[in-house]
Amino acid sequence: MADAFLTGVEAIVGAAHVITDEADMAPFLADWRGRYSGRARAVVLPRDTAQVAALVRACIDAGVPIVPQGGRTGLVMGSVPDTSGHAIVLSLRRLNRIRAIDPANRTMTVEAGCILADIQAAAHTAGMLYPLSLAAEGSCTVGGNLSTNAGGTAVLRYGNTRELCLGLEVVTAQGAVWDGLHGLRKDNTGYALRYLFIGAEGTLGVITAAVLKLYPAPQGMLTAMVALDSPRQALTLLNLLQARCGAALTGFELMSALCLDLVATWFPALPQPFAARHPHYALVELSSTESDLHAQALLESSVGAALEQGVARDAVVATSSQQALDLWRLREHIPLAQAAAGKNIKHDISLPISTIPDFIAHTDAALERAFPGCQLVTFGHLGDGNLHYNVAPPPGVGHDAFLANQDAVNRIVHDAVVAFAGSISAEHGIGAMKRAELARTKSPVELGMMRAIKAALDPLGIMNPGKIL
Amino acid sequence: MADAFLTGVEAIVGAAHVITDEADMAPFLADWRGRYSGRARAVVLPRDTAQVAALVRACIDAGVPIVPQGGRTGLVMGSVPDTSGHAIVLSLRRLNRIRAIDPANRTMTVEAGCILADIQAAAHTAGMLYPLSLAAEGSCTVGGNLSTNAGGTAVLRYGNTRELCLGLEVVTAQGAVWDGLHGLRKDNTGYALRYLFIGAEGTLGVITAAVLKLYPAPQGMLTAMVALDSPRQALTLLNLLQARCGAALTGFELMSALCLDLVATWFPALPQPFAARHPHYALVELSSTESDLHAQALLESSVGAALEQGVARDAVVATSSQQALDLWRLREHIPLAQAAAGKNIKHDISLPISTIPDFIAHTDAALERAFPGCQLVTFGHLGDGNLHYNVAPPPGVGHDAFLANQDAVNRIVHDAVVAFAGSISAEHGIGAMKRAELARTKSPVELGMMRAIKAALDPLGIMNPGKIL
Repeated sequence: MADAFLTGVEAIVGAAHVITDEADMAPFLADWRGRYSGRARAVVLPRDTAQVAALVRACIDAGVPIVPQGGRTGLVMGSVPDTSGHAIVLSLRRLNRIRAIDPANRTMTVEAGCILADIQAAAHTAGMLYPLSLAAEGSCTVGGNLSTNAGGTAVLRYGNTRELCLGLEVVTAQGAVWDGLHGLRKDNTGYALRYLFIGAEGTLGVITAAVLKLYPAPQGMLTAMVALDSPRQALTLLNLLQARCGAALTGFELMSALCLDLVATWFPALPQPFAARHPHYALVELSSTESDLHAQALLESSVGAALEQGVARDAVVATSSQQALDLWRLREHIPLAQAAAGKNIKHDISLPISTIPDFIAHTDAALERAFPGCQLVTFGHLGDGNLHYNVAPPPGVGHDAFLANQDAVNRIVHDAVVAFAGSISAEHGIGAMKRAELARTKSPVELGMMRAIKAALDPLGIMNPGKIL
Repeated sequence: MADAFLTGVEAIVGAAHVITDEADMAPFLADWRGRYSGRARAVVLPRDTAQVAALVRACIDAGVPIVPQGGRTGLVMGSVPDTSGHAIVLSLRRLNRIRAIDPANRTMTVEAGCILADIQAAAHTAGMLYPLSLAAEGSCTVGGNLSTNAGGTAVLRYGNTRELCLGLEVVTAQGAVWDGLHGLRKDNTGYALRYLFIGAEGTLGVITAAVLKLYPAPQGMLTAMVALDSPRQALTLLNLLQARCGAALTGFELMSALCLDLVATWFPALPQPFAARHPHYALVELSSTESDLHAQALLESSVGAALEQGVARDAVVATSSQQALDLWRLREHIPLAQAAAGKNIKHDISLPISTIPDFIAHTDAALERAFPGCQLVTFGHLGDGNLHYNVAPPPGVGHDAFLANQDAVNRIVHDAVVAFAGSISAEHGIGAMKRAELARTKSPVELGMMRAIKAALDPLGIMNPGKIL
């Protein structure tokens, strides 16, 4: 079938990099959690920024929407097209060069399609640290990290992806290239465009490259698991550790007893740190640029102080890197154990850290009233106020049957989030999935400004339509 | 003289808070450095956010532009009106309440007119640190800090003001109130509006309140002055200290011999740390959340390593808080000594840190060729790549006569900045002063996006016209 548009696209990237076969396109159209598949006119894989710009101009001319795509590990259906079949998927995965490493500026310039784990490794080879760390790091891309302002386990110390980026190269919705690849710590020459493209989920333009911040590599890292009475005790422990350890505290993850029960059930080979069962646990990580000994002394004295002050029930400090890994594995296997147990209703929320004990008590009770016996699998990055607050069916109720309550459960949880001045999406973004909840919970003034910016930068509405707004 | 607009304004804020007398208005219309005075229809001092919103709506109805103003310590004529006399000055200084301090969330909610030093003191009283620190802290306001994305001496560790803010309250250019006063570390629910208003210099709306990040108060701080051969050696020292001290390194200021000579001439009472004269100096500050002893041991071992490795000529570690203060005073008195010596041509620039030695060599030489004998008074926040690169006349040439070369000097310096991928305004902003240089040096693609955003959020163009764009 002759198609002038696709012929033009092939002329830009080469026919080998335009996929139109349904079966070959399928992996690019599927949601990561398998909830959904979209349709597309083609999947196009450009090789460089000039090709991306030419593609955007071709799409403008033909009125074809563009869905930018990275490693496809997003959790809110932000990088898959709708079912109309009108859009092209623009996969950035062939833009995967590390363009430069500048140790004296503590920066690295990378293309959007670079895999996060490859960037971490390149930083490590240069004796530095790129601190972004998250479960999908083996396949997610820096372009996706930036477009979703990815969070992960080190935000407490290093910030979100937005704070880890000093410069961007972007193909605008007009098909122009904006070279904003600065590696500057201070730059007050106008509006914060970089910050705007970061987290915009591809709705304002296509990020093609970035300058990332690097940090000195830690000389010592130490991990401990602390047993706790309650989320309130976890908060007290967090404050104690912040005050004593400052920037050395690089991880603070909360998990409930039920989380470790699930891991014990589905991954019985993983060693459990305590003989007794405790209501809650905190996984604590310290990093030191000085030495292993410094990290160890600091962690032991701080955890010791916590036990003395009655801010912890018990504690296990890892004495080998294998033990540290085992403790982190418990945390990382919670979502896997959940998946093995059956589907549940997930929430990626954040709250003012000080309100988390009250939020959990309030929302657990509200859910118990509405769905007696439902099970809360609560864990997350307490140091950032970010909870993965997941609701599983009461014992004896089927997982699929319980999923029918998804909208009602979401409403209870998100209404509580709004009441506690929190966020309905802490680190995953909005995508197509939370668009209706965003419209329901965000202030009209803020939504109005977001729409005005979208119309200003993408007046034709061709960039990732149906996402966020 | 009857004036329906001013009558309406008086009805909003009370007649006592509307200044129209020329003499009474004068201090609100004058540039901080005394280069310029604007004119205004009135200076209006609202008391709260609702009054600000009502004022904006009254200005929309009457077509009157608004110049938001804080502590009037800006250096680029960003908060003073033009000479047309059409605008009102909207002073935020009566919005000066600290609304809340939440130690467990490590946040403070403050109004735009709060003085920075008062916020620092309130944080200190709560056992925390608000790390923003700059010369004007006794009179600048948080609204001005936010609107100019102020930098200062602690950016190396804590970031610019943009990184120190978690939430904003803004009166939009439509006179609506956006309540974005969240205290969240992670929030991925749409476009980064907060980041956009921060640094917009009042051209997109009026910031009325903010949630600021607090940090654990350091338990120990130590300061040293290190004598150096060259900017290149300073860079090597910076990297050595970053690697060994990590986040404990909270200050790294570079200054040339000429800077300390000027201070010695004009402030002979200030003690000078070295008997010998050295080509360059670095002021180094370490902070520890652990103890004074920890900071001291770390600084002494790190500076010792630098001396051993030949990365420093000499070093003085302050052994008392008075000595530390004396070292900082030398740094702080550089601009005062410059002012006493006579007017010079100032630049607030930033560069990739790794390029600074080459930039200085290149630009010093270019200026020497154009203005033989001119004197470079170079100092600044090397840890952030931010130089105050000031050009004084050759010996024997009058300061006022030399100022006639300002445009030519600016062009040489800014062209070099662009060639080295730097910024022509690191921390002061654009205001009215650097508007033409911005238009000359910024990419048309970026300027186009900035104009589109301005038109989208302030379609009537009433917010601080003639600034930035």
